[in-house]
Amino acid sequence: MLSNRLRQIQRQSIRAFNSEAKIWNVYLSGEIHSDWRSVIAEGLQKKNLPVRLTSPNLIHEDSDDCGAIILGMQEERPSWDRLGARMNDIRNKTLLSQADIVVVRFGDKYRQWNAAFDAGYAAALGKPLITLHPPEISHMLKEVNASANVVCEEPEQVVQTLAYVILGELPTTPKDGDRFVPIADRLGKGNPNP
Amino acid sequence: MLSNRLRQIQRQSIRAFNSEAKIWNVYLSGEIHSDWRSVIAEGLQKKNLPVRLTSPNLIHEDSDDCGAIILGMQEERPSWDRLGARMNDIRNKTLLSQADIVVVRFGDKYRQWNAAFDAGYAAALGKPLITLHPPEISHMLKEVNASANVVCEEPEQVVQTLAYVILGELPTTPKDGDRFVPIADRLGKGNPNP
Amino acid sequence: MLSNRLRQIQRQSIRAFNSEAKIWNVYLSGEIHSDWRSVIAEGLQKKNLPVRLTSPNLIHEDSDDCGAIILGMQEERPSWDRLGARMNDIRNKTLLSQADIVVVRFGDKYRQWNAAFDAGYAAALGKPLITLHPPEISHMLKEVNASANVVCEEPEQVVQTLAYVILGELPTTPKDGDRFVPIADRLGKGNPNP
Amino acid sequence: MLSNRLRQIQRQSIRAFNSEAKIWNVYLSGEIHSDWRSVIAEGLQKKNLPVRLTSPNLIHEDSDDCGAIILGMQEERPSWDRLGARMNDIRNKTLLSQADIVVVRFGDKYRQWNAAFDAGYAAALGKPLITLHPPEISHMLKEVNASANVVCEEPEQVVQTLAYVILGELPTTPKDGDRFVPIADRLGKGNPNP
Amino acid sequence: MLSNRLRQIQRQSIRAFNSEAKIWNVYLSGEIHSDWRSVIAEGLQKKNLPVRLTSPNLIHEDSDDCGAIILGMQEERPSWDRLGARMNDIRNKTLLSQADIVVVRFGDKYRQWNAAFDAGYAAALGKPLITLHPPEISHMLKEVNASANVVCEEPEQVVQTLAYVILGELPTTPKDGDRFVPIADRLGKGNPNP
Amino acid sequence: MLSNRLRQIQRQSIRAFNSEAKIWNVYLSGEIHSDWRSVIAEGLQKKNLPVRLTSPNLIHEDSDDCGAIILGMQEERPSWDRLGARMNDIRNKTLLSQADIVVVRFGDKYRQWNAAFDAGYAAALGKPLITLHPPEISHMLKEVNASANVVCEEPEQVVQTLAYVILGELPTTPKDGDRFVPIADRLGKGNPNP
Amino acid sequence: MLSNRLRQIQRQSIRAFNSEAKIWNVYLSGEIHSDWRSVIAEGLQKKNLPVRLTSPNLIHEDSDDCGAIILGMQEERPSWDRLGARMNDIRNKTLLSQADIVVVRFGDKYRQWNAAFDAGYAAALGKPLITLHPPEISHMLKEVNASANVVCEEPEQVVQTLAYVILGELPTTPKDGDRFVPIADRLGKGNPNP
Amino acid sequence: MLSNRLRQIQRQSIRAFNSEAKIWNVYLSGEIHSDWRSVIAEGLQKKNLPVRLTSPNLIHEDSDDCGAIILGMQEERPSWDRLGARMNDIRNKTLLSQADIVVVRFGDKYRQWNAAFDAGYAAALGKPLITLHPPEISHMLKEVNASANVVCEEPEQVVQTLAYVILGELPTTPKDGDRFVPIADRLGKGNPNP
Repeated sequence: MLSNRLRQIQRQSIRAFNSEAKIWNVYLSGEIHSDWRSVIAEGLQKKNLPVRLTSPNLIHEDSDDCGAIILGMQEERPSWDRLGARMNDIRNKTLLSQADIVVVRFGDKYRQWNAAFDAGYAAALGKPLITLHPPEISHMLKEVNASANVVCEEPEQVVQTLAYVILGELPTTPKDGDRFVPIADRLGKGNPNP
Repeated sequence: MLSNRLRQIQRQSIRAFNSEAKIWNVYLSGEIHSDWRSVIAEGLQKKNLPVRLTSPNLIHEDSDDCGAIILGMQEERPSWDRLGARMNDIRNKTLLSQADIVVVRFGDKYRQWNAAFDAGYAAALGKPLITLHPPEISHMLKEVNASANVVCEEPEQVVQTLAYVILGELPTTPKDGDRFVPIADRLGKGNPNP
Repeated sequence: MLSNRLRQIQRQSIRAFNSEAKIWNVYLSGEIHSDWRSVIAEGLQKKNLPVRLTSPNLIHEDSDDCGAIILGMQEERPSWDRLGARMNDIRNKTLLSQADIVVVRFGDKYRQWNAAFDAGYAAALGKPLITLHPPEISHMLKEVNASANVVCEEPEQVVQTLAYVILGELPTTPKDGDRFVPIADRLGKGNPNP
Repeated sequence: MLSNRLRQIQRQSIRAFNSEAKIWNVYLSGEIHSDWRSVIAEGLQKKNLPVRLTSPNLIHEDSDDCGAIILGMQEERPSWDRLGARMNDIRNKTLLSQADIVVVRFGDKYRQWNAAFDAGYAAALGKPLITLHPPEISHMLKEVNASANVVCEEPEQVVQTLAYVILGELPTTPKDGDRFVPIADRLGKGNPNP
Repeated sequence: MLSNRLRQIQRQSIRAFNSEAKIWNVYLSGEIHSDWRSVIAEGLQKKNLPVRLTSPNLIHEDSDDCGAIILGMQEERPSWDRLGARMNDIRNKTLLSQADIVVVRFGDKYRQWNAAFDAGYAAALGKPLITLHPPEISHMLKEVNASANVVCEEPEQVVQTLAYVILGELPTTPKDGDRFVPIADRLGKGNPNP
Repeated sequence: MLSNRLRQIQRQSIRAFNSEAKIWNVYLSGEIHSDWRSVIAEGLQKKNLPVRLTSPNLIHEDSDDCGAIILGMQEERPSWDRLGARMNDIRNKTLLSQADIVVVRFGDKYRQWNAAFDAGYAAALGKPLITLHPPEISHMLKEVNASANVVCEEPEQVVQTLAYVILGELPTTPKDGDRFVPIADRLGKGNPNP
Repeated sequence: MLSNRLRQIQRQSIRAFNSEAKIWNVYLSGEIHSDWRSVIAEGLQKKNLPVRLTSPNLIHEDSDDCGAIILGMQEERPSWDRLGARMNDIRNKTLLSQADIVVVRFGDKYRQWNAAFDAGYAAALGKPLITLHPPEISHMLKEVNASANVVCEEPEQVVQTLAYVILGELPTTPKDGDRFVPIADRLGKGNPNP
Repeated sequence: MLSNRLRQIQRQSIRAFNSEAKIWNVYLSGEIHSDWRSVIAEGLQKKNLPVRLTSPNLIHEDSDDCGAIILGMQEERPSWDRLGARMNDIRNKTLLSQADIVVVRFGDKYRQWNAAFDAGYAAALGKPLITLHPPEISHMLKEVNASANVVCEEPEQVVQTLAYVILGELPTTPKDGDRFVPIADRLGKGNPNP
């Protein structure tokens, strides 16, 4: 692992041309039943990354009832739901459309069709897409992941990805730990003089 | 129901300015485990509607294995899946992007994240969207339906919607049967001289 | 008026580079209570112009009730209206978006907000816009007309405009009849050597 | 109503991931004969919402005469009107195109075709649209409302909608007052584990 | 003229909803042989308008020779010219594309094809366009002016137009001086209750 | 010149992958006082090229008076001109926007600001641009030519360019006649093994 | 391999909803020193696929000298090259921009920067991209391949990909021959009830 | 050279209308084995130019291994490479798409297909493109250079180009030194009164 530590030093001295001046807008879409957004927010804060996080409204009841509270109740569920969903839509599509990067989280519970909808919406707009989900459900997500730039299993990997994308910073410990071997060591230099 | 039959006659005599000359491209996305596409295809054929139907590849095994068969197998599932999904992507996104109308079917089984993804993709492209699903799952689909033009429960309603959109033809029997009362009869003319 | 007749002859011999091969799609939006669409359709047919006319559904009751007939009735008027309007939307926005030219008719009765809405939609898409209305209401339409290419008072002028735009054909009798004097005769050649 | 108050508390503690850092540009289009814009402006100020309001020029005489005053009078009304309307157009289309949200107000007096035109323009640009009008004229506005995200009756509802969209804040008193029952209480949880 | 002064007072008290917070980017294209840009710059400064002016490089010799000086001389004139013009292109198209408003000045000397080119470029991008030229050459500019929002004869009118567009401020003395009569006085209110 | 004749034979046998199936739409903009359009039309016909030519209306008087004839005369020249120019605009911008290639002709007489305007419009739309003008005025056109793909002096060169672009056909006699030496003969192969 | 043959039969009976009616435009970019385009053309013809192939001009000398032959020789190589390259650009960018699918071939000889340029151009336009190259140079192409839908080693795989994309037809012999095992057999069904 | 010095003085007094207020975003793509980026960065700093430089990640090993370090190692090189390249893609395409100007450097070693890919991507987005390479490889780059605004041989020329584009500042010593003669002196004024 020595080579990794050496690289880390090298990185710290060659941070020219990174884009620290830019604030990156990152939209966090999808599952609202676990604390993955907080894990990402804390990770970014620890690393002091220039990121502005946005998300849909996270209070499930409010996102269901907002329309009925402000505009009045509806007799039938589809009308009730539509009233609220169209109101949430203002926030969600505006923030999503103005994001630099869209992160979409899928869990193994619930159908989360809105998460997949947001992923499709982001893909059609050409937004860089990061998906985040447990590996067990990857086959069901193959079409979504085929449009993603990065597929993460843990929120920490999202933070690491953002740190690398924005500052070029890589984690000191690779995911595979001591088993990690750089590609050049393993398979040789890949870019021979033409 | 007399007034309905009278209207039907009136319709048949005022078909000017409909767009019969145009072939409408309709992309049928989503669930592949029931025969909803055939129901729509037969319905359109009976009515002789100028519609060209397209869809993703409907053979589940082929859409899983196409990449591995043509390009070679992959060790890990995510790589295997990605190879196939990216190949399917060529067909799906091309046909979806060139469609006039996108119909997305959700069933009560399976997660069908690709259906929701396609709906989001279509919405971001500004395509008219028709969703088709049993009413029991409407709340889970509220964000998707909020971007839809029409929400159908049965494939026959998709055919009726296309017949109306393209030719102005309405079914002789309304969904609510004899209980149906035109809005003007029920609530009065809605468009008073200003 | 001799000069006018001479010009007419000249025109007939210089029809090179016109765009007869192209079918022009023209969307006729707005008022549905008078026969202006038929006047235009007959005028185009007499001149044998390569135009394909489209329009929204013209049967008022159907455009109100289509959603309720196909999808079921709604308790409240706004839900009833929304169901139908979103269904009509598929036809209207598709045909409008695919038109080469959009004609919007305003009458002196009714508010016709949908006509003005279509005009704004067409303007934002950069479509050439022709408005058609009696001169008495021109002040109320000043913002709409400010985005129009041509403002007509009579449907015959729409036909004449299309004949000129597509074939370069001008009416043998100018609107101002014998009082008409070509600009060059009246004010001199306007394009002096640089 | 206890549950409502509890929710209010919950909201105040979970304001992470709202987009307070963003200034939302909101364009207020339409009727200029009542004080609805001031009501909205004051409501936003009270809630200290990060909103920048813009509007067309609100002095009717100036918007009629601006072209004639700066560029000179015109003989005929259509030319006079066009001169002014094209000048107003610079302001209106620039601010509308750069808005995050467009609010359009319709009154029961006057035709307000420019309001409907702006709504169509906003819809074609994909802007979130909020309409504001008395319920009596809703049928005449059905095509416009079909493209709207939210349809309000009172300017206070626009303020409440913006507060919810931007901060997730909902009014302590629902529109239907004590009769209000959350959807989950009324119809059960809508999102069963798949 | 009393009514004019009264209006002026009214204006000063109703400046809500103007867009003072926004900096307007205005690109000044065209003729470089007179001081029209300075006249505009000074006029804007006097009125303290929130405008950022940009322009192409104004030193004729530099815009001709920039390529040859930095990249080396070329044997033939077309190559020499192309080298410089492509370099100027970076500045011009970037600033023009990022402008809110494009002003193009035509003089009665020189051909100024680049001015007309910029006007066409701006029109295709949907930029509000203000042309500025002596009335004598208006016929030659009819196609260009047909895409313009405002056609000015004097640079002062450009300043007045920007003051009106941005702040709603109109000149105390109309162009036609005491002969000026508001349209409502001359032709009656144009917007009768429908 | 032997090598040239050999190449010609080689070309005739390797016409695979040309795009003969495609009809190329070519818009001919600019000067209307010489027969350059006919020269191009005849040249294309001789070579049987799959090209559909379009152009603005070529009868100067009609393009000046069309608005006044159909819609009525205007008192002032700018209004008269605007009426006509906006009507011509429908044809010109539609055909220009739908063209594959735009050819713009400049002559040494007249200002032809509309030609330069069309060139700018085409450039902003990303259309391939061919300019055609006598070499004497090339410096005045440097900004326009900097956005052109090909700069021709004679209409025959436009025909030759189209024949080459579409079919790969090159003239048997190079412009420089017997003095022509292929680049590979003159300066050596330019593409060494990497 | 029985299961494969069974699947083949199944495929032949379920060809509904394929897009045979559509002609697919496929642009073949890149290396011109081997016969890969002919291999693809013949493969497509054998399978009778509805594909229209286009390509850049394939005669190297002509693509170098076209500008000099039609427009005249240039003293310096960069000017000579530019003249020709800008002329080729008309064909290449037009056909590439109008393609449904872009195939880019890289060989192990020559630098072929134009191939990589075309790939980047296609990626920015959102075109489905198929790359074709020997596996030895894959590391050097990693950024290009990261934007590709499919990475082929042999032209036959391009034909197979197109047959699958357009008709759903898969080769009877998988690339890995008898070693091939469908993913469902190998790793289990991937899409459990939700 | 006197005239050059005089021009320099003239320039310093006519800096109105330059765009100093604007920060120009410049993306530096391509070769990472020499210090060209530092030469440009230092040159810009000396001249105090309002430029924000961005670039891809410059540590070759990190850009190869980032995906494997964060997400885990892959068995096969193409999968390994794809994982990293898609991660780098987030940074590269975001910064490139948000740049005002894109500079692409090609060296005589290595194939640098990603540099050509970036150039094509930038060209399709309509970004002003500056290429930087030794003159020996210009023929191989002819298609790329045909889309470039400026072709430089040395990084200092990039700095000089940016200084001219942004501030109108030209180097005191032309590239051709004392041999330099302004075009007007050499070939006469090029822009005769029309």
